[in-house]
Amino acid sequence: MATQVRPRADDLAERFRAIRRLSREIAAPLSDADATIQPHPDASPTKWHLAHTSWFFETFVLRDHVCGYRPFDERWPYLFNSYYEGEGERQPRARRGMLSRPSLDQILAYRDHVDSALVAAAGDLPFAARQLVELGLNHEEQHQELMLMDMLAAFAENPLAPAIWPQEPEVTGAAPAIRGVRGRIGLVEIGHGGADFAFDCEGPRHQVFLRPHELADRLITNGEWLRFMAEGGYERPDHWLSDGWAWVQANGIEAPLYWRRGEGGWQRFGLDGLRPVNEAEPVCHVSYYEADAFARWAGARLPTESEWEAAAQGLDPAGGNQLDSAGPVRPKIAAAGPAPRQTFGDVWQWTMSAFLPYPGFRPAEGTVGEYNGKFMSGQFVLKGASCATPRGHSRASYRNFFYPHQRWQFSGLRLARDL
Amino acid sequence: MATQVRPRADDLAERFRAIRRLSREIAAPLSDADATIQPHPDASPTKWHLAHTSWFFETFVLRDHVCGYRPFDERWPYLFNSYYEGEGERQPRARRGMLSRPSLDQILAYRDHVDSALVAAAGDLPFAARQLVELGLNHEEQHQELMLMDMLAAFAENPLAPAIWPQEPEVTGAAPAIRGVRGRIGLVEIGHGGADFAFDCEGPRHQVFLRPHELADRLITNGEWLRFMAEGGYERPDHWLSDGWAWVQANGIEAPLYWRRGEGGWQRFGLDGLRPVNEAEPVCHVSYYEADAFARWAGARLPTESEWEAAAQGLDPAGGNQLDSAGPVRPKIAAAGPAPRQTFGDVWQWTMSAFLPYPGFRPAEGTVGEYNGKFMSGQFVLKGASCATPRGHSRASYRNFFYPHQRWQFSGLRLARDL
Amino acid sequence: MATQVRPRADDLAERFRAIRRLSREIAAPLSDADATIQPHPDASPTKWHLAHTSWFFETFVLRDHVCGYRPFDERWPYLFNSYYEGEGERQPRARRGMLSRPSLDQILAYRDHVDSALVAAAGDLPFAARQLVELGLNHEEQHQELMLMDMLAAFAENPLAPAIWPQEPEVTGAAPAIRGVRGRIGLVEIGHGGADFAFDCEGPRHQVFLRPHELADRLITNGEWLRFMAEGGYERPDHWLSDGWAWVQANGIEAPLYWRRGEGGWQRFGLDGLRPVNEAEPVCHVSYYEADAFARWAGARLPTESEWEAAAQGLDPAGGNQLDSAGPVRPKIAAAGPAPRQTFGDVWQWTMSAFLPYPGFRPAEGTVGEYNGKFMSGQFVLKGASCATPRGHSRASYRNFFYPHQRWQFSGLRLARDL
Amino acid sequence: MATQVRPRADDLAERFRAIRRLSREIAAPLSDADATIQPHPDASPTKWHLAHTSWFFETFVLRDHVCGYRPFDERWPYLFNSYYEGEGERQPRARRGMLSRPSLDQILAYRDHVDSALVAAAGDLPFAARQLVELGLNHEEQHQELMLMDMLAAFAENPLAPAIWPQEPEVTGAAPAIRGVRGRIGLVEIGHGGADFAFDCEGPRHQVFLRPHELADRLITNGEWLRFMAEGGYERPDHWLSDGWAWVQANGIEAPLYWRRGEGGWQRFGLDGLRPVNEAEPVCHVSYYEADAFARWAGARLPTESEWEAAAQGLDPAGGNQLDSAGPVRPKIAAAGPAPRQTFGDVWQWTMSAFLPYPGFRPAEGTVGEYNGKFMSGQFVLKGASCATPRGHSRASYRNFFYPHQRWQFSGLRLARDL
Repeated sequence: MATQVRPRADDLAERFRAIRRLSREIAAPLSDADATIQPHPDASPTKWHLAHTSWFFETFVLRDHVCGYRPFDERWPYLFNSYYEGEGERQPRARRGMLSRPSLDQILAYRDHVDSALVAAAGDLPFAARQLVELGLNHEEQHQELMLMDMLAAFAENPLAPAIWPQEPEVTGAAPAIRGVRGRIGLVEIGHGGADFAFDCEGPRHQVFLRPHELADRLITNGEWLRFMAEGGYERPDHWLSDGWAWVQANGIEAPLYWRRGEGGWQRFGLDGLRPVNEAEPVCHVSYYEADAFARWAGARLPTESEWEAAAQGLDPAGGNQLDSAGPVRPKIAAAGPAPRQTFGDVWQWTMSAFLPYPGFRPAEGTVGEYNGKFMSGQFVLKGASCATPRGHSRASYRNFFYPHQRWQFSGLRLARDL
Repeated sequence: MATQVRPRADDLAERFRAIRRLSREIAAPLSDADATIQPHPDASPTKWHLAHTSWFFETFVLRDHVCGYRPFDERWPYLFNSYYEGEGERQPRARRGMLSRPSLDQILAYRDHVDSALVAAAGDLPFAARQLVELGLNHEEQHQELMLMDMLAAFAENPLAPAIWPQEPEVTGAAPAIRGVRGRIGLVEIGHGGADFAFDCEGPRHQVFLRPHELADRLITNGEWLRFMAEGGYERPDHWLSDGWAWVQANGIEAPLYWRRGEGGWQRFGLDGLRPVNEAEPVCHVSYYEADAFARWAGARLPTESEWEAAAQGLDPAGGNQLDSAGPVRPKIAAAGPAPRQTFGDVWQWTMSAFLPYPGFRPAEGTVGEYNGKFMSGQFVLKGASCATPRGHSRASYRNFFYPHQRWQFSGLRLARDL
Repeated sequence: MATQVRPRADDLAERFRAIRRLSREIAAPLSDADATIQPHPDASPTKWHLAHTSWFFETFVLRDHVCGYRPFDERWPYLFNSYYEGEGERQPRARRGMLSRPSLDQILAYRDHVDSALVAAAGDLPFAARQLVELGLNHEEQHQELMLMDMLAAFAENPLAPAIWPQEPEVTGAAPAIRGVRGRIGLVEIGHGGADFAFDCEGPRHQVFLRPHELADRLITNGEWLRFMAEGGYERPDHWLSDGWAWVQANGIEAPLYWRRGEGGWQRFGLDGLRPVNEAEPVCHVSYYEADAFARWAGARLPTESEWEAAAQGLDPAGGNQLDSAGPVRPKIAAAGPAPRQTFGDVWQWTMSAFLPYPGFRPAEGTVGEYNGKFMSGQFVLKGASCATPRGHSRASYRNFFYPHQRWQFSGLRLARDL
Repeated sequence: MATQVRPRADDLAERFRAIRRLSREIAAPLSDADATIQPHPDASPTKWHLAHTSWFFETFVLRDHVCGYRPFDERWPYLFNSYYEGEGERQPRARRGMLSRPSLDQILAYRDHVDSALVAAAGDLPFAARQLVELGLNHEEQHQELMLMDMLAAFAENPLAPAIWPQEPEVTGAAPAIRGVRGRIGLVEIGHGGADFAFDCEGPRHQVFLRPHELADRLITNGEWLRFMAEGGYERPDHWLSDGWAWVQANGIEAPLYWRRGEGGWQRFGLDGLRPVNEAEPVCHVSYYEADAFARWAGARLPTESEWEAAAQGLDPAGGNQLDSAGPVRPKIAAAGPAPRQTFGDVWQWTMSAFLPYPGFRPAEGTVGEYNGKFMSGQFVLKGASCATPRGHSRASYRNFFYPHQRWQFSGLRLARDL
């Protein structure tokens, strides 16, 4: 949680309305049933996301800071608390898909209830509460990406392969050749340090020492991934971390998630349905284990978080292929050009850095301090943003994190190399 | 499958319409989302039942016997085949809850499509096809009971404990004292032998030799079960089968399924919501392990299938508390009276007989021969009928079967004793 | 437990010494380490068998009936109680292989201690205690077969495939053609009824009604099994019970247990090491699921327990290929001849009857009543005896039982057919 | 693997003999059975360690570098390869406890065979082979510690709680109060850089930037851990990482590994048997999750690897309580004194750093390159040495690593704090 954010009340109410509206728009193509099912324990039903983000505002802002607020339903916090131990018992994560009731309509009414109360109170909120609204909006933006991830995961379970937002495939171009871009060296500052909003785990800003290295100027493509596969990438243990190889063997992994063998070659399932794999687009839905194995096979490595962040400082974090409105999301072919490209947008980029606290890290006070700090074991950092990340949500210091076997997020990779 | 059934075409079309209508009425209180979720791998979504029963007619009658029939959707048999290996690959049983699409409306349209085709063809069906229609209707009646079981299982997962058919509790009476009724002895004929419909596993009719015994004249009640619990029934291994005790320990079993501790004592969740346990009603939702342990604790035993069937021959199988129309189902308090009561209706009654083939058993020809015969290992027979069994579906020779740990069916017990 | 056994003291002491000696001889080729390991939770270490059988006499005879007996070690009953809940907590079954101590030598000293005390007391034992000695001897004979089963299971885990008792293979003959033998029909008495020892579950003697049928005059051979395999026996679901097919799929079953593909064809691992499969010998180490599938494929069925027992009454139960002394055990090729052969010895024969109580069954009083009764769910009866069953331990009424997926016992099959 | 090590031939042979001898001495109290069992999949049988370390020399030195060497047994590499994919298929790790054969004596003969061949060849080995001998000796020293860990794990499974090396408990003193020692700040060099042996993962030497901090001058004691427990340390989720709390809940964790409730308070099982917990001794056998939770509860944190290593540079790595010879191992009470104490010896110290490659890391060439690099995901670094680490095996740059839930190693903690 940020400590320095200073949101003005007007903007806040306006942003609140806009961000809350986008969540509904993302859910718009879904039936009540679509929004109810849970494809696996890591992914939540869309209804649950819509309700949980409302619970966040209701609990941390309205209940704690708005006198006289009446909760929508006393029994719902049990249903829609995610993992905040400080807020008590809750529906087990793996059983969120059992909630056919409340209905989607009831949950939308819950959103209206919370939104009205919050907008009415917005002008009078104390500073601490405005900070929590800001946190809640960033939280909601994270859940917008999770909704897209989890909708995709849910429809991927359906043998009918329904397209959520049918769309013509992009006209195929070719990705330009990869070139190396020299990274910054010596003592470099990373981490968040300004007055704008950032999550607690992004700071404090601190110095790190970087050695000579270069970063690829674009992301790895599906075409390059197909070569890795053709050369036995998934069959040769020497490319893989030990845990990664065990994961490949135990799960019969042979391609990125959502790839299927079709008559005319590999296809990939997306929010726009089942399409042939486009060789020029960035590869997406690969795990850390896969990204790491690819990099070894390519004679390279993944960047560290510091290297990536140092290179991204000064670039426009809203300048890429990110989410602008509800609709299909798809990584785009890299344009030709002189500089590092695809830094923000398209796919999250695995780094070889574990998600651990920065020197001097202190979690936010209170229950919202459970937001990031308690997840600091066993996960790797991803940097940048994806085509499913709301535009304006990103920055160079942003630290996304997943376990090394996970790949239902929009994740790909960029190579790095020592010099 | 029956070999002797001779359904007349007129009656068949009429019965077809009535039975098909009841399935829709049972599903009527459910939203699309309610009808989509799968609470555990043994229980299927309501939508799936509605579609699967239609697939049965479409496949075995319309496709195989009606020239020019056009299937509703070529891709749906994959979704709605249950376990017929002869019909090819299918959606894995444990993943039936992923089918948010097709929607409930689409599945109702599928039913209309099949119903129209079948009613149109009914007059011209050859004998073999009319037999398959009869089989399909009995199959659908079985799924009506499964729908009620699985709806209950699904709503029991919801922390809000919604009542599907809210209803006032029965005015509490008292169950009459149990009396023993002497059973038939010596050589007795059991199994189905007449010209009416019966499933293949109910025959051939054959002789068994019975020794002196008596059967309780009514079912065991919740009050009697509470005494079993109060005397440490779930805590003392000496009452239990070895597998049963392991099941109790591994799952923390301490009461019948759907019982919950409330402030004023034990409650039970049902299709009418959460209610105090009524001591006079028959106990329901107990496993074979529990029924067997109760019987040992009571110094008695469960009846054998033969004993039960011999006693039930001649009783009216439609004369008890069975399903007449969509609505709440509930076992009823035994009336006072001189004869065996609660034989058909209220709850299925565990017997101590394994579900095995009768002497001379031959499965039906073709894929429908997978209906019963391939389940003949590891399961126990239950006799009678329950409050969720469609009236008219029962007979003395009926053989229901479940694994000894299962209890989401409407199952209870009647005691027996050697003389 | 038998109620009618009247063992004379003299014979008892003599038999006691002989039977106890055989257990030691069976274990003789094993090192301490060989006797310690546990290949899977169903199989126990040899050391454990040697100690458990001694614990049985120590607990139920010496402790309960011999004044002044001093237990060998107060802490050992925890280690060597098998499943008697009435005797308290015990080492978890799946962790019996952790007992590197006590050593094999210490356990042999335990046996000496128990044997001396029992032989010293034998002349003065009351009748009830002599019955328990008789039970203990039959119990020990059962464990002698278990020791051979479990030693085989343990060495089968060793990639070096050590031969416990190396032996030349039998000169290959041919099995005679199978002929059908008509079984007894009408009312027939089965179950144990005499004054000799029998386990409690073998009685009471009672009447059953049998229909016309015939039994094969010999066991199914490896050669016949190879034909089943060659014709897709393990690949076609229509031969299999539903649970059996799931078991085949989940475990990749493609041949009897201990069969391995070698360069020159199938081999089987036995106590005499790795040998080519002998086509004329009875097939061994098949599960109920496999036996049942084979019978369907052959257009036949397995016998019922009653049919088998009725046919075996009057045959010499000690007249076949059973265990006479420690050494390699192996099913033998059927001799030519006019009558049913291989009834006792060679392999246990799966029946299609579930292991359930006979009419009027009462478990033995006290903790030894846990011996059989509590296992009466989910298991099938096997009749006869195997080449690993001590000669003299068998009779027509004997009821062996295993779960339908188990096959580390010496189990095969004989076909039956309705007439 | 080191690239700069220059072992002289004479010393090497001498060290070879001494180190190889110590392994046998450690195993001396064990019977063949003791040395055969495998308590859990992470721990290997002692016999396996004795053979695997010999296989390492046989494979990478004798087979690859000594002309005419004849392997001891062609079938054994399958049994004793650990995880080197480059060396082919091997006995599954979780089934190492099935190897009752080869016997302990045969494995000791294997050791003699390898030792003779290696000592005979030692004078003529090329440089690369001498490097591999050096690697093999360091490998063997690691397995000496593993042997002690795994022996303890094995005997801890035995309800008789046998003491391997019985020993009187230390006279109880008191640990001095903890004082903070300021750490080095700014740019600091860490990692191995000299000519002595080091594992590949310890380099390259590189600069890191450290902020102001202090380290505790001694390890956390059992007494301090008991206070953590008394204040609900294992019951309050707010102290714990999310994964850690899930681990506590799923496994019912309530104390360090090998602690047991006794009548007079907590006891701990060790190689010297079952003893009361000594409050002044360093706590041992705690997981990363526990160490991290303790640090939070104490208002502190764990050190980073860099902080720890910077503080340890210049200290004598052989100056603490490490393994000198076979016998009981036990962490010792901290002496009073002015400087950081217990840096090397007593217990491995969890750091908050993930085990990841240093900048510029390159795995060793060939199969031995699988030694460390492929384990670089999901694990945390531990620094120092334990009472079970052979003296002389340690250095400041040493990187030990385990998963955050593991605790059968001799692991404890030292606190750190930001300034």
